[in-house]
Amino acid sequence: MYQDKVLIVGTGAIGGFYGALLAKAGADVSVVCRSDYDIVKQQGYTINSSQLGQWSFMPSQIIRDANEYQGHADYIILCTKNIPEINRVQLIINAVSKKTCLVFIQNGVEVEQELIAAFPEHEIISGLAFICSQKTKPGIIHHLAYGTLTLGSLNNSGRPSANVQHLSHLINLAGIESLTTGHIIQSRWLKCLWNASFNPLSVLSGGLSTQAILNSQEPLIRTIMQEVCNIAAACGHPLADDSIDINIQNTYSMPPYKTSMLLDFENNRPMEIEAILGNTVRAAQRENISCPVLDTLYALMKLKQLSGFQH
Amino acid sequence: MYQDKVLIVGTGAIGGFYGALLAKAGADVSVVCRSDYDIVKQQGYTINSSQLGQWSFMPSQIIRDANEYQGHADYIILCTKNIPEINRVQLIINAVSKKTCLVFIQNGVEVEQELIAAFPEHEIISGLAFICSQKTKPGIIHHLAYGTLTLGSLNNSGRPSANVQHLSHLINLAGIESLTTGHIIQSRWLKCLWNASFNPLSVLSGGLSTQAILNSQEPLIRTIMQEVCNIAAACGHPLADDSIDINIQNTYSMPPYKTSMLLDFENNRPMEIEAILGNTVRAAQRENISCPVLDTLYALMKLKQLSGFQH
Repeated sequence: MYQDKVLIVGTGAIGGFYGALLAKAGADVSVVCRSDYDIVKQQGYTINSSQLGQWSFMPSQIIRDANEYQGHADYIILCTKNIPEINRVQLIINAVSKKTCLVFIQNGVEVEQELIAAFPEHEIISGLAFICSQKTKPGIIHHLAYGTLTLGSLNNSGRPSANVQHLSHLINLAGIESLTTGHIIQSRWLKCLWNASFNPLSVLSGGLSTQAILNSQEPLIRTIMQEVCNIAAACGHPLADDSIDINIQNTYSMPPYKTSMLLDFENNRPMEIEAILGNTVRAAQRENISCPVLDTLYALMKLKQLSGFQH
Repeated sequence: MYQDKVLIVGTGAIGGFYGALLAKAGADVSVVCRSDYDIVKQQGYTINSSQLGQWSFMPSQIIRDANEYQGHADYIILCTKNIPEINRVQLIINAVSKKTCLVFIQNGVEVEQELIAAFPEHEIISGLAFICSQKTKPGIIHHLAYGTLTLGSLNNSGRPSANVQHLSHLINLAGIESLTTGHIIQSRWLKCLWNASFNPLSVLSGGLSTQAILNSQEPLIRTIMQEVCNIAAACGHPLADDSIDINIQNTYSMPPYKTSMLLDFENNRPMEIEAILGNTVRAAQRENISCPVLDTLYALMKLKQLSGFQH
């Protein structure tokens, strides 16, 4: 039986988890792993999942740089944080062979062009993870809740490609829900609705949970979401009329939740300000859409990042 | 020679300083003093001024509540923080006699009506202090820089009243600049230009100085100031065309400065969010002026206050 050859680049809480799932489903999974190289080389990964229990994942190849990869990868899955300091193309280019399908599971909107421009001949799959997981120690990943991975190809429109369907099948096989879509760009904007509102507010408020923010300032959340809807529509990806209501309702029924930007800020790590807010306001400028609240949040988050670096 | 009888209500860094100046100029100055009562009763106040050196100020009467005041005050000067938790009328009403002139030296816009409604027969003077001072210990006030007090009567328009001129004269006599104006409401909006922009940004950024904020986000500061200008104009108090440029230039040339809201936040004290931001956005709503950035800052500051109280 053919084993899919998968290379995971960025093996934090997201890459480590989905890599381990693909290995569980029978794929030959390797990892590019820099900071945790020594420990992972000895012990591999341990996944503690609230849904699937505990298991170990020993990657097929553990390498420090993509150029050390042996063989031809069917899939390279990029799972790093999406921040300007990380050059996504450089990180993977030396492991890309002719038939490699490129997958990125990352946050943000309008994050496709850089990869399309660098790899015009390759299929590129865009992935959105709705998951609560964290790397607690080198090689140790805790999967706390959720996990749904939505996948869609950039090269086709309307129908999921064969590669999208195959990857999604493997994740489902491993026991975690994976959905496919022919409208992944729209799905990204829909996710941005939540990310662009709750992420900055959690940080700027000084650490309030999503519940506390909603209880006190639901109208502001709705204003931000409406601005994102306006921009998405202007970019040709209109969201359903009830998107805002559904997002608000779902967030009320989630347990109090610390956003990814808040976790990054509290741990002194760079936040995905550009991928989530910067790209959104730049899209608005290009499409001539007014978004004064997002402009304000973007500026404030840059100030916040600045003060974080000073302390 | 007649001694003006002055009662200072709220003897922190502002009230203690201007009270001491009036005593220095020959007035009979009493204080309502609650938290520091015992120490002030023993030692009075010590003022350490960068401009005027050190001197002591022993108030004529030191009382815990305005209703204990003996005699008829010519001036009651309210210098408390301007926050919803403090009922300004209740704080002074029991010391107000028929000819008392009421003075408030406080931050904020549209803070007059409450006093006018309670004391329709009294002259009310509105004061704006441009000062850097702090109470370092009970009874000890450090005057670090500036100090100009601008005074204007609410009952007259166009010309400073006799009481305004007299109080201003006493402050100048004591060695600190005091200006008079026939347009004090406009002066309040002008001060709000600075307060509504730098105060919230200093807190939301996580403690950046005015310099650091300007260096990184001058356009946001200008947007906020323009919104304040629009509201002031709609309220009938248009600011000069170059107000924004002058404010920006002056702030660049000030030493890096911690705003009053930032000092309050860092010391776990309530911030003047309502007087500065809340009243501004409510004025905008009433006048049907759009101010999305101020709306956002107001909501964020309420969240920030909420998270501060939780910690």
